[in-house]
Amino acid sequence: MAIKEGDFIRINYTGKVQETGEVFDTTVKEVAEEAEIYSEKKTYGPIVIAVGVGHVLKGLDAGLVGMEEGEEKTIEVSPEEGFGARDPKLLQLIPMREFKKQNMKPQVGMNITMEGHTGKIRSISGGRVTVDFNHEFAGKTLLYDVEVEKIIEDDLEKIYGIIELQYPNPNIKPEDHEVKIEDGKVVIYLNEMAKFDNQITYAKFRIARDIWDNMGIDRVEFVDVFEKKVDTEEEKEAEEE
Amino acid sequence: MAIKEGDFIRINYTGKVQETGEVFDTTVKEVAEEAEIYSEKKTYGPIVIAVGVGHVLKGLDAGLVGMEEGEEKTIEVSPEEGFGARDPKLLQLIPMREFKKQNMKPQVGMNITMEGHTGKIRSISGGRVTVDFNHEFAGKTLLYDVEVEKIIEDDLEKIYGIIELQYPNPNIKPEDHEVKIEDGKVVIYLNEMAKFDNQITYAKFRIARDIWDNMGIDRVEFVDVFEKKVDTEEEKEAEEE
Repeated sequence: MAIKEGDFIRINYTGKVQETGEVFDTTVKEVAEEAEIYSEKKTYGPIVIAVGVGHVLKGLDAGLVGMEEGEEKTIEVSPEEGFGARDPKLLQLIPMREFKKQNMKPQVGMNITMEGHTGKIRSISGGRVTVDFNHEFAGKTLLYDVEVEKIIEDDLEKIYGIIELQYPNPNIKPEDHEVKIEDGKVVIYLNEMAKFDNQITYAKFRIARDIWDNMGIDRVEFVDVFEKKVDTEEEKEAEEE
Repeated sequence: MAIKEGDFIRINYTGKVQETGEVFDTTVKEVAEEAEIYSEKKTYGPIVIAVGVGHVLKGLDAGLVGMEEGEEKTIEVSPEEGFGARDPKLLQLIPMREFKKQNMKPQVGMNITMEGHTGKIRSISGGRVTVDFNHEFAGKTLLYDVEVEKIIEDDLEKIYGIIELQYPNPNIKPEDHEVKIEDGKVVIYLNEMAKFDNQITYAKFRIARDIWDNMGIDRVEFVDVFEKKVDTEEEKEAEEE
């Protein structure tokens, strides 16, 4: 059965820049290591996405439609459906004295952050520094090697996939959370470790929105359980002594 | 029926320093205004406490035992059962040059904070500044005017009282939260506004502990509801145009 928009699928992918072959993103640990982009903060392994809803780049979303379970394919993503075309206005000339004011010594290739935007220094000449604030892969055609592991039918599996996508945490496995679907609502018991995460409220909102928009369920409840620790027999005996 | 340890009661109180008559804490808005200690960040009105568990100073807790519903009384709290005796070791001599290093000009009566402890400057002489790190009311006998409004029997009322005590928020009324007791557990739906409060996890823990310890219920669940906003008829019509 061919994939259509709105389907949940589990995929592995590796994204490369067509021009250079540089691997910039992958779900496969070994590929990340080989390309020297491996990060301990990332969770590797296949990810679950809903097709056509913006979980991945537009061009990748479009290329997935029509694929079959088990199929492998290389999807070409144009700049327009990837990280955008290059915008010449985002090349800025900055006087060298601005860097000196901040005790910075600019060098070609260096990344700098100004007002929250990251740019790369392209050239330095005559007291002027050219900084490129375009996205690193703007204007690039990308190639995604994709393998569709599975088209997901089971609602619980979809929800575990959404949690993993919207709240990736290398210290928590999906099965450490508990999910129930009952009386037309989804009830999620997130793992204890998520309780003390400052970002958790926003993650909850993203998870809920994905469920509303892609599963037709309008109510999502997150339950934090606080259960009294009952002393073990040993502890009780120790106290009595 | 006289109050005993473990009872939940609703009280108004006003605490004064015996020696000076200075009002330093009160649940009554008008009294706070008159004493010029009114704060917009505080919620005024009677509070619910469990007796004998440390919700209030030890001496106040002790004095409440045996009182009757509706009774008014002044409870005397000794320093030992109040804010502690004065400790001469907490009077410290600090060289004036330490203040100068930090561009501070010490003056008698000024409060300063050092390494997280607050102290009051008592005297300045010969290049030395005496700072008192004792609690402002250490060594003071206190008088609490107390009125017991009600001995609380209803479990839901007890829980609302605990929420108010452990998560006071002048912008949220207790009835804005929803509480259910079912299948031997307490289920609390905190108001939407609590969701985005960074301190809420710790407040949840304090509320749960109070319920465990004082109500004999071992499981407390906090539920965050995320419900899809359904467009109203008017909005739908506006979109269709």
